[in-house]
Amino acid sequence: MHLGVFVLGTGNHIAGWRYPGAADSFQSLPVIQEIARTAERGKFDLLFLGDSLVAGVNDHPSFTVRFEPLTMLAALAATTTHVGLGATSSTTYGEPFLVARAFASLDHLSGGRAAWNAVTSSGAKAAANFGREHPRHDARYEVAEEFVDVVRGLWDCWDDGAILADRETGQYIDGSKVRSLDHEGRFFKVKGPLNIGRTPQGQPIILQAGSSDVGLALAARTADVVFSVVQDLEEAKLAYRALKDRLPGYGRKDSDIAVLPGVMPVIGATDAEAREKLNTLQSFVTGGNAHSMLANRLGIDVSGFPPDDLVPDLPLPDTSHGFARAMLAKAKRENMTWRDLLNLTGAARGHWVICGTPVAIADTLEEWFRAEAADGFNILPPYFPGGFDDFVDQVVPILQERGLFRRDYTGTTLREHLGLERPANRLFPPAASG
Amino acid sequence: MHLGVFVLGTGNHIAGWRYPGAADSFQSLPVIQEIARTAERGKFDLLFLGDSLVAGVNDHPSFTVRFEPLTMLAALAATTTHVGLGATSSTTYGEPFLVARAFASLDHLSGGRAAWNAVTSSGAKAAANFGREHPRHDARYEVAEEFVDVVRGLWDCWDDGAILADRETGQYIDGSKVRSLDHEGRFFKVKGPLNIGRTPQGQPIILQAGSSDVGLALAARTADVVFSVVQDLEEAKLAYRALKDRLPGYGRKDSDIAVLPGVMPVIGATDAEAREKLNTLQSFVTGGNAHSMLANRLGIDVSGFPPDDLVPDLPLPDTSHGFARAMLAKAKRENMTWRDLLNLTGAARGHWVICGTPVAIADTLEEWFRAEAADGFNILPPYFPGGFDDFVDQVVPILQERGLFRRDYTGTTLREHLGLERPANRLFPPAASG
Repeated sequence: MHLGVFVLGTGNHIAGWRYPGAADSFQSLPVIQEIARTAERGKFDLLFLGDSLVAGVNDHPSFTVRFEPLTMLAALAATTTHVGLGATSSTTYGEPFLVARAFASLDHLSGGRAAWNAVTSSGAKAAANFGREHPRHDARYEVAEEFVDVVRGLWDCWDDGAILADRETGQYIDGSKVRSLDHEGRFFKVKGPLNIGRTPQGQPIILQAGSSDVGLALAARTADVVFSVVQDLEEAKLAYRALKDRLPGYGRKDSDIAVLPGVMPVIGATDAEAREKLNTLQSFVTGGNAHSMLANRLGIDVSGFPPDDLVPDLPLPDTSHGFARAMLAKAKRENMTWRDLLNLTGAARGHWVICGTPVAIADTLEEWFRAEAADGFNILPPYFPGGFDDFVDQVVPILQERGLFRRDYTGTTLREHLGLERPANRLFPPAASG
Repeated sequence: MHLGVFVLGTGNHIAGWRYPGAADSFQSLPVIQEIARTAERGKFDLLFLGDSLVAGVNDHPSFTVRFEPLTMLAALAATTTHVGLGATSSTTYGEPFLVARAFASLDHLSGGRAAWNAVTSSGAKAAANFGREHPRHDARYEVAEEFVDVVRGLWDCWDDGAILADRETGQYIDGSKVRSLDHEGRFFKVKGPLNIGRTPQGQPIILQAGSSDVGLALAARTADVVFSVVQDLEEAKLAYRALKDRLPGYGRKDSDIAVLPGVMPVIGATDAEAREKLNTLQSFVTGGNAHSMLANRLGIDVSGFPPDDLVPDLPLPDTSHGFARAMLAKAKRENMTWRDLLNLTGAARGHWVICGTPVAIADTLEEWFRAEAADGFNILPPYFPGGFDDFVDQVVPILQERGLFRRDYTGTTLREHLGLERPANRLFPPAASG
């Protein structure tokens, strides 16, 4: 089983920062350093950051004022030793050369622990910060397909062993082990080579979270880890299988991708205590924030719907999040009112919430893992540090005892934690044996 | 007196990495961490990184494979406490929103030690990594003027105290202290606000190194620190005065900008030992690298010139570095041959080299400082760590003894080290007194 932690300084719950003792800033180095220490104490594979390119002043506090992900993870690279460091960076509002370079740099700084979550930036508002029109969903994915290829091509411009640094002869570089990319595609023209050598992992890990048809296609072709947003076991099994079944089409196999559903654990010594904790968190939610969050997720204004009305069938616009569908399906299935849906969104932005004792939570995670609904989980602590401490100190030991999760790291790179081989360099194929 | 250190992992001398005991990589975290520790031991104001967006395989080794500057400085932010952290980022191949955000993030991570060296990317080859044509010199500066204004505007979108994080009421943000920028200019259209709050320094420090007329105009209007490339005292005094005399035109005063000439100190117990050390370093230079470096600086192919011919008057193309002029002027003044000029370029890329005992070097720096040729210096150690240790352990104590340089930090932010006040927020002017 693989475990990631989704980091937001004020907690994943929209009002988590109001919980007694919780951190209340996503602009504080000590806050994120403590989270990283806890992740390594828990032997986590990965520490992960979402991102957006816009400040939604009424949105989740950590979506409004936050560290820039690459600089934040680079700071953590210097004070951690094992945990993978995954950041989101946009293929719609970025340049392949800069993205390839930044993640290569992070991979060197961290000794092989960098991961790039390639996203197409679903939020249309970001466009206004770049003087552009926001491209439509499928158009964004066409760009993303080429963008990811260019980035991976740039990562391969340097072969292993290209840097000789031979003091005797003065030769620094073996010119036969570096080449340009000379990419000329539909959207990008990038010469290369990159100005940083091949990285400890060969290539940084690629994360993906898209759930649309084109999102799944991109993930199946290029991703090493996929975050899924699912609300129940049957749905999760279908999503898991749907992705894995695409892999042979790209010459890949099941074990090449780890599928990690996002889950917010709310932990108590008893079921009642856990339920009470969730109720406390929900009581902290103020209307404006939850409305803003739900409107962003669905891509429609929701303020006009009476809170006690059942959620109806709704046509979703092109700008809705991929997992808006999952939330609406759950709302229909469980006969939710708008108030229920607002609560669900405020809690975990549409991610799955499990509430219970450490044993009950470990049971559920084991059930999902054994049912081939998940290769592990992306844990969304409702607040930090306490909500994450609870999981690491109370649930992880149970998973370890059951032989489901590592007791210690056996490697030092993220690729090793994930059990993935260092990839061959596509631009420097091994010479034919003679 | 203010001191910066220009960091290149393999040393500033093009062949510094071949010196016995020298570091030979600019992709190694321990190498840069040791440099940063030494900078803080020496009570330096600033640790500074140049940058380019292209790998010149025959260029300086640290120009070929190198860390991406923002990630590198973020890693150092976590393991240092006082030294300023300055990185170069391009106004020609960047987006104002991303640049503003990354430096704001670095300022938060470092507790107020971030500095942005705004450059227009003189190297035309970078264009090919972005599928673009390289704009001409003056056109690049027109963009830069607007780019810097947008970045500074984004930094001001949040006022101090905007983040309330009031647990009792649930109010996270004081909406009256955040506003959009709504910039619509000739080159950029950026709405804002930035998705990170006002930084510890109010605004990160702005560095500049341009020496052309438009470069000086941008510096005089916007910079806090200016790096100059000068080869002798009279030239340095003129350059210093030329910049400072522009300041009143922008409502600024002499003390608002610190001018730091770049200087490579080569230190020995005797003059002869220092000279011998420089000769050793020069003997490590291989022809290809120095030719490539000189060609890049001048913007012309130099391989056809006979090495023993005197350097003639040359028309410089638009793509030549600003300080190509200073190098050629020196070559003419001192009747240099092409070989001499290659040696000068190989040593310090056209920067000033001083060679001598610690006392002699301190004397020269003091002379320049008292003559109003410099407010301090950007030190370019020929190799790391030894070449920097020599300066910090042997020259800095003399400067301290003479009362020219601080014995300890008196503040924690770069702005405090530079003696600059935290700027008022231009978007939130103080209310008129009532």
